[in-house]
Parts: sequence; C-alpha cells; structure tokens
Amino acid sequence: SVNPDLASERQTASFSVEKLTALLDGGAEQTRIRRAVVEAIESDPVFSRENQYFQTQNERYEAAVRKAVHLQKRMHEMGWTENGPEYKYIYRALSGDVAFLLHRVFMRSISVLGSDKQIAKWIPLATQLKLIGSYAQTELGHGTYLQGLETTAVFDTATQEFVLNTPKISAMKWWPGDMGRSATHTVVFAQLYIHGKCYGIHPFIVQIRSLQDHSLCPGVTAGDIGPKMNFEHIDNGYLLLKNVRIPRENMLSKFCEVRPDGTYVRQGSQKINYFTMTTVRISLISDEVLTPLMKACTIAIRYSVVRRQSKLKPGEQEAKILDYQTQQEKLLPQLAAAYAFHFINDYLQELFNRGYREIQRKNFDMLPELHALSSGFKAVITQHCTAGVEICLRACGGHGYSLLSGLPSLYTKILASCIYEGENTILLLQTARFLIKCFMAASAGQPVPPSVTYLAAVKHGKCPAKNKLDFLSPDIYTEAYQHVAVRLTSNTAAKLQDLIQSGVNKHDAWNQCTVQLVQAAKAHCHYIAVKNFAETVEKLETKAGIQKIMKHLCDLFALHGIFSNTGAFLHDGYTSAAQMDMATASYLDLLAVIRKDAVPLVDAFDFTDKSLNSALGSSDGQVYQRLYEWAQRAPTNQMSPAYEKYLKPLLHNTLSKL
Amino acid sequence: SVNPDLASERQTASFSVEKLTALLDGGAEQTRIRRAVVEAIESDPVFSRENQYFQTQNERYEAAVRKAVHLQKRMHEMGWTENGPEYKYIYRALSGDVAFLLHRVFMRSISVLGSDKQIAKWIPLATQLKLIGSYAQTELGHGTYLQGLETTAVFDTATQEFVLNTPKISAMKWWPGDMGRSATHTVVFAQLYIHGKCYGIHPFIVQIRSLQDHSLCPGVTAGDIGPKMNFEHIDNGYLLLKNVRIPRENMLSKFCEVRPDGTYVRQGSQKINYFTMTTVRISLISDEVLTPLMKACTIAIRYSVVRRQSKLKPGEQEAKILDYQTQQEKLLPQLAAAYAFHFINDYLQELFNRGYREIQRKNFDMLPELHALSSGFKAVITQHCTAGVEICLRACGGHGYSLLSGLPSLYTKILASCIYEGENTILLLQTARFLIKCFMAASAGQPVPPSVTYLAAVKHGKCPAKNKLDFLSPDIYTEAYQHVAVRLTSNTAAKLQDLIQSGVNKHDAWNQCTVQLVQAAKAHCHYIAVKNFAETVEKLETKAGIQKIMKHLCDLFALHGIFSNTGAFLHDGYTSAAQMDMATASYLDLLAVIRKDAVPLVDAFDFTDKSLNSALGSSDGQVYQRLYEWAQRAPTNQMSPAYEKYLKPLLHNTLSKL
Repeated sequence: SVNPDLASERQTASFSVEKLTALLDGGAEQTRIRRAVVEAIESDPVFSRENQYFQTQNERYEAAVRKAVHLQKRMHEMGWTENGPEYKYIYRALSGDVAFLLHRVFMRSISVLGSDKQIAKWIPLATQLKLIGSYAQTELGHGTYLQGLETTAVFDTATQEFVLNTPKISAMKWWPGDMGRSATHTVVFAQLYIHGKCYGIHPFIVQIRSLQDHSLCPGVTAGDIGPKMNFEHIDNGYLLLKNVRIPRENMLSKFCEVRPDGTYVRQGSQKINYFTMTTVRISLISDEVLTPLMKACTIAIRYSVVRRQSKLKPGEQEAKILDYQTQQEKLLPQLAAAYAFHFINDYLQELFNRGYREIQRKNFDMLPELHALSSGFKAVITQHCTAGVEICLRACGGHGYSLLSGLPSLYTKILASCIYEGENTILLLQTARFLIKCFMAASAGQPVPPSVTYLAAVKHGKCPAKNKLDFLSPDIYTEAYQHVAVRLTSNTAAKLQDLIQSGVNKHDAWNQCTVQLVQAAKAHCHYIAVKNFAETVEKLETKAGIQKIMKHLCDLFALHGIFSNTGAFLHDGYTSAAQMDMATASYLDLLAVIRKDAVPLVDAFDFTDKSLNSALGSSDGQVYQRLYEWAQRAPTNQMSPAYEKYLKPLLHNTLSKL
Repeated sequence: SVNPDLASERQTASFSVEKLTALLDGGAEQTRIRRAVVEAIESDPVFSRENQYFQTQNERYEAAVRKAVHLQKRMHEMGWTENGPEYKYIYRALSGDVAFLLHRVFMRSISVLGSDKQIAKWIPLATQLKLIGSYAQTELGHGTYLQGLETTAVFDTATQEFVLNTPKISAMKWWPGDMGRSATHTVVFAQLYIHGKCYGIHPFIVQIRSLQDHSLCPGVTAGDIGPKMNFEHIDNGYLLLKNVRIPRENMLSKFCEVRPDGTYVRQGSQKINYFTMTTVRISLISDEVLTPLMKACTIAIRYSVVRRQSKLKPGEQEAKILDYQTQQEKLLPQLAAAYAFHFINDYLQELFNRGYREIQRKNFDMLPELHALSSGFKAVITQHCTAGVEICLRACGGHGYSLLSGLPSLYTKILASCIYEGENTILLLQTARFLIKCFMAASAGQPVPPSVTYLAAVKHGKCPAKNKLDFLSPDIYTEAYQHVAVRLTSNTAAKLQDLIQSGVNKHDAWNQCTVQLVQAAKAHCHYIAVKNFAETVEKLETKAGIQKIMKHLCDLFALHGIFSNTGAFLHDGYTSAAQMDMATASYLDLLAVIRKDAVPLVDAFDFTDKSLNSALGSSDGQVYQRLYEWAQRAPTNQMSPAYEKYLKPLLHNTLSKL
C-alpha cells in the first residue's frame, strides 16, 4: 500500500506524467522499448543489485564479471544487438553495474584506430569474449596531458618487433578498468621510437595474460590498484612492462604505419578520430551524469513528502519537510537542472550528429566549436550534477547518509565524472581558449561559429525588467545571461592583453587569467543551457499541461542561477539591486509553485524501485519499514567475534542484574 | 629520501614552522605533550590504521572494540587520566577510530542528568567498562525535533516501574552508536506518562542485553542499522522496546523525579544542562571538523608540489600543479579557512568557558547569545570544511579518488558533521531567530549582547577603498563584512514585517523568509570569523615571520569570501564594481604570495604520516612508490573465483597465442 502522504501528491499533478515520460524518452515507442528492456533485466536474479551495499570489493567484482558473461547470453536469447534499439537501455537498466566496459573501449579503439586487417582479426574474437581487452592510457604520473606519457615502444628492425617498457615507476599504467584482474589483452599507448627518434604517442595491442591459465605474460607485472571511492565492481589495474615484445602488426595502423625497414608512414586524416574522442565526453552525460541526478532527485523528493518533522504552525500536525522553503530551495533547483541538462544533452547529441555528417563529407569546420562545447558542457554538467546529488543526500539528513538510501553510492560514483575523460578545470580552460580566440576574431569583424556569434553583438544596455513578473520572461533572463557571458569573456580578454602589453610573457599572462577564464567558460555554457531550455519550452506541445510546467522549471533554472551568482549580474549595473530583489522574489515564489508538482515531476523519470535501489525513494513511500527490513539483513547483524574476544572478559565480572 | 620537489618547498619558508606549530597548540609545552601521546599511540600496533581501507565493516567494528579495550589498559599504564593534559590528544591521535564513544556520552548524560545516588551507582561501573552504555535519542521518524519523539515510558504505580514502548515503527530508536552490537545499557529518551498525562521527554536507563551472555533482554529487539557512508567502525544500532519494565530509580532524576505515588516533581534549573548540549556543538569542531580539513590540505598541497603535469611554458619541464593559478585558487583558500576556523574555535572555547563560569554563578544572561553562536558556527564551519575537503579531494584528480589517498574517508566522515548534533539548516535558522530578535531590540534602542551590538550601529556609507592595496587593510574588509551582515538581517526583518502587515500569518511569513534568514545567519558568522582572524593577527608576536604570514592568510580568507559572494557586497552599492575588481586583483595576487609558503603552512599542522594514512600526503613526497606498494597489498590482489567460474570457460577455446 502506498503511504498516503505520497499518494496525495500524485492526485494533484497539473500534467500527464505518462506524456512527460514519453517526451523525455523521445516518444512513446521509445518508452515501450525501454520498459521492455528494464523488465527483462530486472526480472533476472543474476542482475539483482539488492545486496550490493553489503558486498566487499571482491564480491562486487565477481558479481560484475558474472553479469557481463550472463548479459552476453541474454542478449543473444533476447535478440538484442549492438545496433538494435534496445542496446542503449541495457547499460542504464544495469545501472552500469557490470564488468567489461573497458573491453568495449578496447574494441572501439581497434575499430577506429586499426587497419582493416587488424579489425578483421581482433573484433570477432573480442565480440565473442574469446579474449578480454582493456585500454591502457593513463599512467601513475600522467593523466590529461597525453604528450607527457612515459611508456616507450622501440622498434627492433632485426626481429620486426616493438619492445615495450614502462621505464620509471611514474610510467606504470594505472587506472585502466578490466585490467587489474580480467584482461588478457590491452591497447597500450606509448611513445614510439624508431632508430632512436621519437614519433610521439601511438597505440599498441599487447597481450598481458595467458589464454591458457591466465598467468601474467613474461615481462608483465599487473594487478588491481585497490579500493576506490566507488566502482568497487571494476578491477581498475596497474601494468608494468619490462622488455615486452610484440609483433610489428600489433601497432594500430589506420593512421600511421611502421614499415619493415623502420620507415614511418602517416596516412589519412586523424581528425575523425579526434572527433570520436570529443564525442565520448558528450556520450557519457546521459547515463553517467543525468541519470544519477534524476535518481537522487526522485529519492530526495519522495522522501521529503513522507518525512514529517517539526511544525509550521503550533497545533498543526508535523509538516512534510518539502513544505519548508529551505528544503524546496535545496531540491527543486536540482530538479530544474536535471530537466535543463536533459534538454541540452538532446541539443548536443543533435549537434554532434550533424558534425559527424559534415566530417564524413571531409568538412572539418565544426571541429573547434564541437570541441569547445563538449569540453565546456562535460565540465559544467558533471560539476553541477555532482553538487546536486550531494545536496539531495544532505537534504535527507541522517537517513541520506545510510548506504541503504542509495544516495551515497550515487554521489561517490558521479563524483568521478568530474575527473575522468578530462579533468574539469582543464576542459573549461580549453573552452575559454576557444572563447577568447572567437572574441578577438569577432572584435576584428571576422566570422565566428554559430554558438559564439553573440560575442560579437555586445550590447551596453540595461536589464529592462520593471517588476518581478518580468523575470518570468525568457527574453529578460536569457539576455541577462548573455550579457554576463560577454562581459566575462571581454573583460578577461582585456586583462590578458593588458598583461601582455605590460611586458608579461604570454604564457604567464594566461596563467594569471585562468581563474577568470574558467568563470567565462562556465558563464558561456550556462547561457547556452538557459537559452536552449527556453527554446525547447517554446517548441513543446501546449497540451497535457506539459509546456506550462516545463516553463516553470525553465524559469526556476534561470532564476536559481541568477540568485546563486548575483554578483555576476550586478557587477556592471546591467541588473540593478531593485531588479535583483524582483528576481529573488520571483525565484522564491516559483519554489512554492513547482513544489505542488514535485512528485509527478520525478515520477516522470520513470525509475523502477529496483533501479533506484533505495529505502527512501521507493514508489510506495514506505520508508521506515524498508529501512528496518533491509538493515536486518546486513552482515553486521551476524554474530561478531568481538564479543567473545573483547567484551565477555570485561562483562562477566559484572553483577547479573543492575 | 625526500622527493626533491617537496624538499625544495621547505627551504624557502618565510617563518618558523616549529613556532607556528606551538602557536596552534597553545604553547610549546602543549606541543610536547601532544607529540608524546601521538608517539605512544602510533608505536602501538593495536592502534594501527594501515589496513583500514581494505577492511569490511565487520572487521572495522572488531578492530574498534579491540582498540577501545586496549586503550583502557594503555591509559592505565601510561598514567593518562580523563582530567590529565594528555586526554584531549588521545582521540585525535586515534583519528577517532575507536569504539565506545557513545559509552562516554552515556556516562556524561548520567553525570549531568542523574541524581547523586544514580551517579554513585552507575559511573564507577561504566568507568571500568563493567557495562557498556549507549545514548538512545534519535528515532527512525524523529531527529532534530525532540518534542516529536514517540517512545513512551508509562509509570506503573502498582509495581513502581516504568513500562517502555516504541509503539510504532517510526518510534524505533535508530542511529545510536555502540548500540547495534556492543551496548548492555542505554539512556532512552521517552515521553513520560503518569496516570494518563504526558509530561514530555525524559531520560531512562534501560538494560538491553544480558551481562551473562549478551543476549537481548525480554521485550528488546536490537541490531545494527547496516552500512553507512563512513563510521564503519561504529555499530550504529536500532532498538525496539515492547513493554520493557525498569525500576522507578532508573529515570535520571537530577531535575525531575516521579515519587512512588506518581507525583511529578521538578527540581532545580535545567539551564546548565541546556548549556551543556550547546557546548557539545563547539567541542566537536576541533577534532571532527578542523582536523579533517587540515589533513586534507596537507595531503592535497604536498601532492600538488610533487605532481607535475603539462607545461606552463613550451620547452620547460612540466610544472608542479600548485604553480597553476586555478590549483592555487582551489587549495589556498581552504588552507586560509583552516587557520581562520582554528582561531574562531579558540575564541568560542574561551567564550564558553566564560559562559560556564557565569552560569555557575546563576547568571544565565549569556545563554541566548551562546546558543546562537554555537548553532551558527557549528553549521558554518562544518559546511565550509566539508566543502573544503571535497575541493582538496577533487584537486588531486584520479589519485584523490583512491581510498589510499586518505581523502575519500576524510570527506565521507566530515560530511556527517553537517547532519549530526543538529542539522545545519535548522541550526542556522535558530541563529537567524536570535539575530532578528536582537535587530528589533537594537532598533528599539534596547541593549543587545556584545556579538550583535554592530546591528544597532548601521552605517550607510560606502566602502572607502581607493586601490587594490586598500583591500589588504583589515579595517576595509571587516567593515564590508559587517555592512553585509547588517543589510541581510535588516532587509529580512523588513520583509518579515511587511508580510505580517500584509496579513500573512506570522508562521507562514517566517517560512517565506527562511532562505534569506539562512543567508543572514551565515553572513553574521562570516563577519565574526573575519573580525576575529584580523584581531588575532593584530595580537600575534611579530617575531619569526608568523604575524606576516598569518596576515596574508587572514587577507586571503576575507578576500576569498568577497570573491565568492560578490553580489552580497555589490548589492546596495556599498562596494562599487571598480572596487570589486580591485578586491579580485588583490585576491589573485595573494594566491601567488601564499603559494610560496604553502608546504610550510601545512607542515605546521604537524601531522605524522601514520595519522594522515595517505599515499599522497606523506612527508617524504614519495607518492607513486607508496601508491604502488600499498595497492599490491589490497585484498583485490588475491585470486578471485571469478576466473575459474566465468572467465576460464570463455577463454579456454581461444588460440593459445594471438
């Protein structure tokens, strides 16, 4: 039975939850396919995650391997293929809790970087899991800065082999998933040397474990890097190579080849490969970043209408905690952000599909813009969503701190997204470099890519809002965001030029501007996200109340950003203090409006109880019962040897009854 | 041997590290005593934390119990007593990784709430660990709002007993430490009923487990609440009571007594008890909040001078990451905050000692102010330090995400401090209530407590700064903080009155102001922290370079707060945009200045390698070697059954050599 405090929230929805779910999925047919996949996965006990909060790292790893092997079988049985419509829902349905994810990266890198012959040899074996691959790029001493990698591959003309070494401890490969315990092969990135000359970083297929007994190959030292904040199910590994020899054919050679005599030949354009790496940053947003935030919102908001604490007025029943303005102000902006980023993700996906078509036609003009957008949004969205999940966790008080709430593991996992696939600060500086370049070009009257044309059209007006309702006009707030983005970019460009003109070396000058460059890059992305949300709302169907509630969320997303960064809008007087007070009033008013639809808005994300795996967020709101029943099954409720060893000797001298 | 990149940082210290350590400790003699305790604890293998990142929750619990029992023995051997000078260093030296902390709370509550007779009976038994106590206040359904607790204690005149019940699942006691598996007794807080009348919450000593065989007593259901984000070593427990009878003598009766005939007698003033609960919020700051931030700063800053990544200028060696402005801007403000909060903690300790003396003289005038300060600073400091530890973790990139860095466990532990001993938002609203009351009183010309007299003296001037160097003047920035605190309090008070005058019920009006009330409370605490830091610097000895570097940190703490909240300072034009640019310039300049002393500033915290328990933060900077050696000992480097079960069947059909 559904907790009446939760049930009542659903009776007053201002819109059709089912229609909103279909909108989020991209159509009712997509919803149907997704639900079928979820049903198939969740009804299979092998894929159960029910015990995961009780398991050790070793148990998690074993379960993940079991799931990966079972998944291969199930996909075959279900007729799901990698190119089928179901595929993209599988990983989501598993909540990523499966091994051999790096095996997929191994396969993709061979497909993208390998010659036709290499693809023909390796891909079928990998597809059938007759070998297990990994992807060994990051080293103990080097992450984002690839040129600094220290692993070497020296070509030996005599034997037609590459000799691979990790010459220093900092050159040891460190972090690759599936490598610590599972992988038999890996793609190693190493500095290529021929006849003593360095040709830079290249990829090599290296066997690291025997296919007979899984023992390490000669010259190979490998193992697991130990406990992490999350990803217990993944065997992130280390790898030392000492004079490991591989045949010449094992260098992935779609773009570069080493001929038998040691001649180095570069062929074709690597730009499409560069583009592929860029798209990875976008592709991770949906499953790794948005889904966790949506789950956290679902858990925290459902809990907040079931939990009653203290009284709003004397004599009344204790209030639902979501009725407190401070609780609304914690959770509802996160909900608005989840929707905002869902729509910007759609926008980016579409943009990248268009980019891919252009690149296939050998038109590389969009590359710099796509690189800047993917870097900036990867950083902004991961940062924002990570903070959002943490806010949800803290908003649930003590119960949010229990692993059984599901929130700690969502947090510890999403946090990693701020670091992997490019550390966020470095990515934001790449976006900033693009912005400065485009701003200079635009100032000089040169053409710039579409997403930054606004930099050319600097307006020196003032915000025209006259009352608090004006701040519910997308034109008003979008313009304000644009103004801030332009100001931060132009001011920083000016500071940079001033420093250089005053004699500071240009690299030092850049470093002295980086804190502000990061601000400019964030403001740029924030502006685009607000503009895109407003445009999306504009295009929505007006039926079923969906446009109206999405408009509220769009307003909230925009006004929350203003409320949280008032200085950026007040700085040059574009927004006056009186206008800021109006914006704040509108923002706080909106909280009470959206609060009414909060539960339907998270219901629309359509997570099953199994996928939430949370005692606080289940769809029936029976929080306390669930916490109690679940806790009783914890391994800490087994007898501990601590009693016999330490407590009994103390206590047995005490009086029997005090 | 010390990594030369770390060693070089120590050669250029602008001050005496040893003198600064003594200043932090409160004198060289205190440093000596602290080091002796640390040495005694760390040389004892029972207290080792080396394996903690590899241990399960069960293993952590058993180790913590072992340590607690061993500690009792060692204290006796060393001649350490609860009133001795060593006592306060023991818990810090153990990093809190020990059981029976709630046993101490059990003892304290009997000492404070019990009659002389009760103290005489229970305290000796507890001191000798002849029983193990806990403290059962929080319920599944109730935390901060104590009046809502649902557990009942009904007096039965016939048997002269109290009959205890947790009548609903939400009434179940939940969270008490040491209760899940260890405790034999606990202090239960329950609604007292006599002859059908409720007298509110009272404390009762209840035996829950047999002293003979540790089995649960009749009517008692208890166990462990399962996995949490941290505190694996503590058996936080649940407790259900069904008609559990305890003798009349077991109600703690210093302040209230139930006579045999059921007469309820209140005696003495509970105010000193209320004061005791207030001081707990202050007493946790040092060990639970400041120490973790100081450790995180030590780890992240040492790592940032050892890690080299990318190049500041082409052709140069890769740069230490602490040489990047963005890295400085992440870490150095956290370092400044650690010092700022250390000094405010000294201030609060002194204030509370004075308050205690007054209260013993039956003068309760200081209580409201002390309550407001302890609530506000508990919230502000825990929040700020939690965010700071997270920033340190993220600033270490991938390696920060490994448990072996020590940073994840610092984060997951400090996070709890935002929730326990009063949830932060609720505490801030208590401070805000005090501020509003004092503001109204001050406006009406009535006297107000010392910490809020500034609310009466509202000045409507402008910030007088004329160039960026003016922002290194404590008068300038302290005045600015004061101005903001006054403005936020007075504006919110005005909004509150407007709402009430426009007919909104006063409770609804309060709720509609809470987001802004929280801001006002934070601004008040921030102002006091800045003012106190500036005053502390003023009083420091001018020798040994300490005053100079502390002045830099004070400036950085103040300017970071301005830089991160520009809107608050710009809002009413107190600070102009041009002045804000000056403040920003001074802030960014300071980063480069303090960066030079960053390592000596964390060295002064004087953490041993064992207490940091971090592969990234050790005093010799041998990061990579340590990560590698430590990881090899992880349980995940033992053979997994996954190979035989799942991988071998896949791989044995593959060719032996590809």
